[in-house]
Amino acid sequence: MINRFTVLPLSMMTRTLDAVAAGQLLPDLVIVGGRIFSMYSERIIEGQEIWIKDGRIAALKPAGSYLPLPGDRTLRYDARGGMIAPGLVDPQVNLASSLMSACAYAEAALLNGTTTILVDCEEVAAVCEGRNFRWFLADARRASLSVYAKVPVRMFAREYRAAAAEEMAKVFHEWPEVRAQAEVADYISPVAAGVDDMTEDRARGRGDDALEAAQWVFLRCEPSEEGAQRLARQLGGVAELSACAKRLCLCTDQRDANELSAFGLDWMVRQAVAAGVPPATAWSLASLNPAMRFALDGEVGGLGPTRRADLVMLNDALEVQNTWYGGVLVVENKKITSVLDRALSKPYHYPKEVAGTVRIPRTLKLVPELPVTEVVAKVIGVGAPSAGLESRRVVLPVARSWGGLLTAHRLCFVSSVRFGSKAEAGVAYGLLQDFGLVEGAVAGTVSAEAPGAWVVGVDEADMKVALAAVKKLMGGVCVVRGGAVVAELPLPNGGVLSALRGPDAAKQLGALKRAWAELGCTLSLADFCRLASGGLRGISLTPRGLLLVPEGRIAPLFEVEAGATLLPQA
Amino acid sequence: MINRFTVLPLSMMTRTLDAVAAGQLLPDLVIVGGRIFSMYSERIIEGQEIWIKDGRIAALKPAGSYLPLPGDRTLRYDARGGMIAPGLVDPQVNLASSLMSACAYAEAALLNGTTTILVDCEEVAAVCEGRNFRWFLADARRASLSVYAKVPVRMFAREYRAAAAEEMAKVFHEWPEVRAQAEVADYISPVAAGVDDMTEDRARGRGDDALEAAQWVFLRCEPSEEGAQRLARQLGGVAELSACAKRLCLCTDQRDANELSAFGLDWMVRQAVAAGVPPATAWSLASLNPAMRFALDGEVGGLGPTRRADLVMLNDALEVQNTWYGGVLVVENKKITSVLDRALSKPYHYPKEVAGTVRIPRTLKLVPELPVTEVVAKVIGVGAPSAGLESRRVVLPVARSWGGLLTAHRLCFVSSVRFGSKAEAGVAYGLLQDFGLVEGAVAGTVSAEAPGAWVVGVDEADMKVALAAVKKLMGGVCVVRGGAVVAELPLPNGGVLSALRGPDAAKQLGALKRAWAELGCTLSLADFCRLASGGLRGISLTPRGLLLVPEGRIAPLFEVEAGATLLPQA
Repeated sequence: MINRFTVLPLSMMTRTLDAVAAGQLLPDLVIVGGRIFSMYSERIIEGQEIWIKDGRIAALKPAGSYLPLPGDRTLRYDARGGMIAPGLVDPQVNLASSLMSACAYAEAALLNGTTTILVDCEEVAAVCEGRNFRWFLADARRASLSVYAKVPVRMFAREYRAAAAEEMAKVFHEWPEVRAQAEVADYISPVAAGVDDMTEDRARGRGDDALEAAQWVFLRCEPSEEGAQRLARQLGGVAELSACAKRLCLCTDQRDANELSAFGLDWMVRQAVAAGVPPATAWSLASLNPAMRFALDGEVGGLGPTRRADLVMLNDALEVQNTWYGGVLVVENKKITSVLDRALSKPYHYPKEVAGTVRIPRTLKLVPELPVTEVVAKVIGVGAPSAGLESRRVVLPVARSWGGLLTAHRLCFVSSVRFGSKAEAGVAYGLLQDFGLVEGAVAGTVSAEAPGAWVVGVDEADMKVALAAVKKLMGGVCVVRGGAVVAELPLPNGGVLSALRGPDAAKQLGALKRAWAELGCTLSLADFCRLASGGLRGISLTPRGLLLVPEGRIAPLFEVEAGATLLPQA
Repeated sequence: MINRFTVLPLSMMTRTLDAVAAGQLLPDLVIVGGRIFSMYSERIIEGQEIWIKDGRIAALKPAGSYLPLPGDRTLRYDARGGMIAPGLVDPQVNLASSLMSACAYAEAALLNGTTTILVDCEEVAAVCEGRNFRWFLADARRASLSVYAKVPVRMFAREYRAAAAEEMAKVFHEWPEVRAQAEVADYISPVAAGVDDMTEDRARGRGDDALEAAQWVFLRCEPSEEGAQRLARQLGGVAELSACAKRLCLCTDQRDANELSAFGLDWMVRQAVAAGVPPATAWSLASLNPAMRFALDGEVGGLGPTRRADLVMLNDALEVQNTWYGGVLVVENKKITSVLDRALSKPYHYPKEVAGTVRIPRTLKLVPELPVTEVVAKVIGVGAPSAGLESRRVVLPVARSWGGLLTAHRLCFVSSVRFGSKAEAGVAYGLLQDFGLVEGAVAGTVSAEAPGAWVVGVDEADMKVALAAVKKLMGGVCVVRGGAVVAELPLPNGGVLSALRGPDAAKQLGALKRAWAELGCTLSLADFCRLASGGLRGISLTPRGLLLVPEGRIAPLFEVEAGATLLPQA
């Protein structure tokens, strides 16, 4: 068992650490021969060794201070000139985007040198009206990673006001790892609302404004070469303005299991260095700075005495070679160690009730009635990548079947399924334009909105196959082609999180993404999942119907030219 | 009444501020025509104006955004090109060194552009075994200044363990303005003790070590040209090492009422700039950085929306022209405004019991018995300025009176008086060498140790006059010459704090310091007061006797050559 609690609280350890520092007690581990990345002064220090006891740093001493005694059990680790840095602290992780449980996420994180994450729990909490949140926190406590949570205010406040406020107060009281409120996604007036930080990947101006508005800015970027370039432009501004980076952080925000291995937080730090940020400053953007934002700098974020021995060994290209978590070597030569492997093999198991929350009714009509007169459809348009979804108007003439209409207007069906008993359940219909899917179907239960499933296709039979597959998985995502499931990822934990080990989830997800792409879909799975999130602008489909953002209004799918609603939503 | 509570908590103001920012509600005050010192990015921003409502910043807007309406009550203040910066945050103020109450300190602080202070309460709490501490906090709450407190752990823990722990827990519970533990003055092993910050004015190396030991470093310096040079050397090191200053702060630490006007925190910032630190970075060392250290950056330390409108207007030399405290103009053109004057005229009055704590017995023998055989005296030697006090050995031959012995060995008497009833009271004797006093006497009740008074002289009659004068003042400091009191400063609040307005205290203190210097004393009053503080090293006199530091052992004044004690302490 390796988790956050394997290391005792500092208050119980000061005497022990003091004794080790004073040379009266032997350390467990001494890391010698490394260059030390100081986050406190943002420079590299040579000629020191790190003394570790019971999972915390007892002292940094001049090289050669530790003299082995015959028979002592102190481990001496020679870094052979490698750089020793604190484990990374990721201030904004959308865990649901990874599709992994916290226990599974730990493996990918530690391989990237990340030892602490702050999870934005919006999607996680969405599933069961707050109940899931407690299960998630239990998962977080079991993980071989320091997982802190940000509570989804928007979730609790908008949807479930009265009961939720009480529920939320309990969560804050009972779980000290809840460190902050989650990001306000439909962010319009940052001013004066008491918001302390924001995640940013767009225009330089907006990030600058937020910084000057006294906020911490968490820079994010897409897991791609383009994303790296955008990050470089953002960071270039810091140098250009001679601005101090002390309130800037880097975060991964949204990465799936698959993307994490190549585009983790360590990759972002390397991109920052490539953009001209000095290495120790760049590493601080993803360690001490975020630790300070969440008042965790007494525990993590730097290599000081009393801090947790969460550290990494880097090569000169800042690639993570080794990771120690609470003084335990969990990654060596870019591979997990057997001790971590054993710990990861005993993850938290979500209770059966979680799977039970995915209640997809057996018989549902998945496509809207064919209009009997000419109508104007409000369709969801897929535009340029990285732009939002557009609300478009398409005139649909009278037709004998859907087939011709869909082809003529580059449309496909998208339906949003409400979970629940036969009485509660239901379907909201939408039409997607330029999504690229011309055969088969895809379905899934991953969304940032209230519990539900989505299914996309051009043919109701395929769509039914897809939805039935997801129902059988008790939540998940699948791709159907030629009437059969060709790829699937089970997400039995509330329809959102996988129960697999990290690499297994990544592998299945990889196959799924390939099958998804082969259908011709122009949006990635991740981008598509955001469709239902009521995002920042444009239009999205929720189980309640088509939502216009930022108006917040539910709009009918079809209107006759005069503007009156022709057909009610199911 | 102007105090910290005049501005409502942010949680009660978000809607109002939001409405002002959105242009739906008028601001109270708009500051236009200034250049803005951003602490968040450490740069100067032009072309913005500051909108203030109910004592908080509602928005920073492009210049010209505010358009006066006929009849609106919004005040428009033209900074005429001046620089607008956040009020300074002093992370370490030894209030007792100022000899002023918190209410009186406010005046000097606001004139210096300081709007928030963190008071190290060691001396304050020393007086009445923790009880005074509550009175002090009541004083702090009344002050026209944001006063936060650091609890004197050493005090509570060393002297009054059991009862004090309980007392201290109550204080933490009842007073949210208690933000941290006070400085550990007899600091030997910083390592592994969970100490988060330290105050430093000595060797560069020690400050660097503390920084790398994950601590915040508060740079201090003496109020003098020499002090400024030392500060410059410290800060020079930051540039030399290309180290980031994000964990560095400036603090005044020890300044008396008199010194504050010329050598306040604003002076330190100017010295930092003179030493080559960029202006916005230098100002941040004394505003945002300390605010972050104490998790007060949501309230103060920068000019962001939602923050308190604690701000200053500076000229190009960074001299404070104006200060706004909670949106109220309290200093204009370097003078306090009438509204502040009225607030300062109603300070907190300490209860009568506090004065009652200075219980000096009527009849006491103030000088030791003349030894009847040759002895070795352990004397307190005054060495180079800024060095500590030295423990020296002086052989005293048999003599007929003290007079000749004192002259021959450049000695004078120093006696430490324990307060209390006739049974509890007592005197500990010491001898000072090279203190320079050859006539008259000085006495006072200011010390960092447990409650007591000290009196220094070469003649018991003058010493008695001095002690009687201090007794009559119910606590204070006085200088006696030719058998009469020539200067005095009453400190009726526990023998430590004046009840006067700041400038009055400063004036009386000025006269006292001149009289003190005219007696030839080689130590300043402030340095002398530290004599009894059990400082960092050397020797000091406490009401319990001569204390050797860091041994922590009480030593006899006289020994015969063999080492046996000849005379017991009274």
